[in-house]
Amino acid sequence: MHCIYTHESTFDKQFQALLGRGKMDMRTVTPVVQTIIEEIQTRGDEALGEHIARFDKWQPSAPSHMRIDTNAMKEAYEALEAPLKSALHVAYERIRTYHQKQLPKSWMTYEENGTVLGQKVTAVDRAGLYIPGGKAAYPSSLLMNAIPALVAGVKEIVVCTPAPHNELNHLLLAALHLCGITHAYKVGGASAIAAMAYGTGTIPKVDVITGPGNIFVATAKKMVYGDVNIDMIAGPSEIGILADSTANPRLVAIDLLSQAEHDEMASSILITPDEALAKAVIKEIEAYLPRLSRETIARESIHKRGAFIVTRDMDEAVALMNEIAPEHLEVMTLNPFDLLPKIRHAGAIFMGHHTPEPIGDYIAGPNHTLPTGGTARFYSPLNVENFMKKSSIISMSKAGLDAIGPSCALLANCEGLTAHEASLRERLK
Amino acid sequence: MHCIYTHESTFDKQFQALLGRGKMDMRTVTPVVQTIIEEIQTRGDEALGEHIARFDKWQPSAPSHMRIDTNAMKEAYEALEAPLKSALHVAYERIRTYHQKQLPKSWMTYEENGTVLGQKVTAVDRAGLYIPGGKAAYPSSLLMNAIPALVAGVKEIVVCTPAPHNELNHLLLAALHLCGITHAYKVGGASAIAAMAYGTGTIPKVDVITGPGNIFVATAKKMVYGDVNIDMIAGPSEIGILADSTANPRLVAIDLLSQAEHDEMASSILITPDEALAKAVIKEIEAYLPRLSRETIARESIHKRGAFIVTRDMDEAVALMNEIAPEHLEVMTLNPFDLLPKIRHAGAIFMGHHTPEPIGDYIAGPNHTLPTGGTARFYSPLNVENFMKKSSIISMSKAGLDAIGPSCALLANCEGLTAHEASLRERLK
Repeated sequence: MHCIYTHESTFDKQFQALLGRGKMDMRTVTPVVQTIIEEIQTRGDEALGEHIARFDKWQPSAPSHMRIDTNAMKEAYEALEAPLKSALHVAYERIRTYHQKQLPKSWMTYEENGTVLGQKVTAVDRAGLYIPGGKAAYPSSLLMNAIPALVAGVKEIVVCTPAPHNELNHLLLAALHLCGITHAYKVGGASAIAAMAYGTGTIPKVDVITGPGNIFVATAKKMVYGDVNIDMIAGPSEIGILADSTANPRLVAIDLLSQAEHDEMASSILITPDEALAKAVIKEIEAYLPRLSRETIARESIHKRGAFIVTRDMDEAVALMNEIAPEHLEVMTLNPFDLLPKIRHAGAIFMGHHTPEPIGDYIAGPNHTLPTGGTARFYSPLNVENFMKKSSIISMSKAGLDAIGPSCALLANCEGLTAHEASLRERLK
Repeated sequence: MHCIYTHESTFDKQFQALLGRGKMDMRTVTPVVQTIIEEIQTRGDEALGEHIARFDKWQPSAPSHMRIDTNAMKEAYEALEAPLKSALHVAYERIRTYHQKQLPKSWMTYEENGTVLGQKVTAVDRAGLYIPGGKAAYPSSLLMNAIPALVAGVKEIVVCTPAPHNELNHLLLAALHLCGITHAYKVGGASAIAAMAYGTGTIPKVDVITGPGNIFVATAKKMVYGDVNIDMIAGPSEIGILADSTANPRLVAIDLLSQAEHDEMASSILITPDEALAKAVIKEIEAYLPRLSRETIARESIHKRGAFIVTRDMDEAVALMNEIAPEHLEVMTLNPFDLLPKIRHAGAIFMGHHTPEPIGDYIAGPNHTLPTGGTARFYSPLNVENFMKKSSIISMSKAGLDAIGPSCALLANCEGLTAHEASLRERLK
């Protein structure tokens, strides 16, 4: 680990590599995923059973055994110790409160002549949430995916999560109960995405699929996109930190590590005009690494994919961070709100020294499902609108049609569409 | 052409076929499109020149010759006859006014303890609009794609449109001038999508690509999705009409034909409880067909893909239409607003006898880029938010962190993420 400097001639090349971080090459897994999808499409539950045996090492004796028992959810919830139950409830309420503020409203406008235009917003009928399982079983992912769907008003929510050896994380079960999920299935990977996209005897076809996953899940989501909607295609997690000399190097170090511990492929990027800070952070990281339970992962991640960039000034730091467009951005400066107007691209922005990124992973309120790999340039955090869609409303009055119909007929005529023109002229007679 | 009846035993099967309308099988074109994309990625402008020679039958002598001259746009605009120029302006203003109402607002909320949460909405840096050319050169497509991007505040808008034999539609040129587009290129098909997704020497890489196109364009959009955002994957156009005995059969017939004339693959579907109306509509269609300039296309479309469904009552008609989830829905009934709450899935809803679908294609204000093939169950009409994205904002006060930090640390611990936990605990000391 060492600093890199924007004033050095080699900087551009090093920075280009950072911009290419997290790119997934789906080509090698595409044929595998294609086969999985086709098997689910043609043989439904039967294929699901085979995939579960192959990937999760257990065999459902009947399709109905893929379904997660709601009693098991309730028992897990009731068995929670009080502090943990309370923590889940605090998270649930704060996430719900935040997402309720996102709810879009239908609207209508009225013109003098009686014409009405509007936009109607409605929830999708069915949503499918994919929640990773096994070593990366994150109950928080369930809250972050289910609550926006619930707030949107989705009537039917389906959850799929893999259960290696037919075992499930008890906190995930408890979270399923808390969210009131009744349709949950022990199915994982590309098979789960295909099952929710096209339906099987047991798992209903949904309209929208959201949720994180590995490259097989991401590739399956891309392949079913268009037949259903999806939230985004996400890759490895990442953090960018903008810091000035007021930042505590130890906190910066731990926050970078909290991203690095997720995954060997995670990226942790510090950009600061303060060379002394950058060097102190590197020292703190080395000191802190042995204290982590996931030391090996964090060490590999931070050594291979960490970056410590020293800039000429803070403006240059912000400009570079906009190019990075990180999933998570911490602004650890004296006056973080001064920088906010200049920050154009980031999934979630964590302001000031009291706002560590993990507070957003669990409990602050905003969603933790965020665009990665620079896709914050065009993707939004998961939000209630991922579970809703709009319809335009047009109601012309006779006077309104008389006013603009002739212009419309002229444009239709210019495009050579005579039935379009006739549809107008017949009414203008 | 004949009526089909919901009370007949064969209905379900006939209806299932309607639900499968417009499904595109991308598998046959995928390898071709894959090759085109790889050629653009590896050889940029050189490959673009070859593709133009192959598909559009002219050879740009230099990459800069692919660019559409802004003087040509201005001249085309100035040469417009007054009524047409006025019609374009009316369309522009009404479309702009409608889309301005869609603009989302950034917001922040403040908690007692000083914690601030919010959501920042910003335009993407660069948008790419694909406008089909050749026999289907629709200047209206330019207005409908460019205006939402302009309203969203996109700084750099790139347009690609094919120019067979190096010729462009003069009304499209005029519309480019009206929209103030300066970066427009005579490039079409999958090559154009790839060029905008990955950039070439001449065409800049964009963040979002929108616009209609044939199956090659649709397949390319799906393949680049994730590297850029796209609006939707759209197939052949379609109309659904809900009508009661107050509907004029001649108008219903012409409105169905105005969809049929687009494309042999277009679907025109009437659903009504009034058998006499359905039969009268079929008669009017036969009588009107010979009067259309695009008679052959309209005839093939309406005969092969038209449907005239007679239901038991209006409730059943609405329920079936929700399953169809049509791109365009005309409600030609006595009291169309009575039905509006029951209509759950449709791209654009045209209310009452004075609201022909073509008024929405050009001039009413709402967008004409709409989800097809039943995807209105989850896609929205093209809108300003296609050109914008959100960032979450979290700013914890010390008191706010003290209040919820311990619960957050507990959840992090349960997920086995000790650096996450440490990031909190270090601040809670």
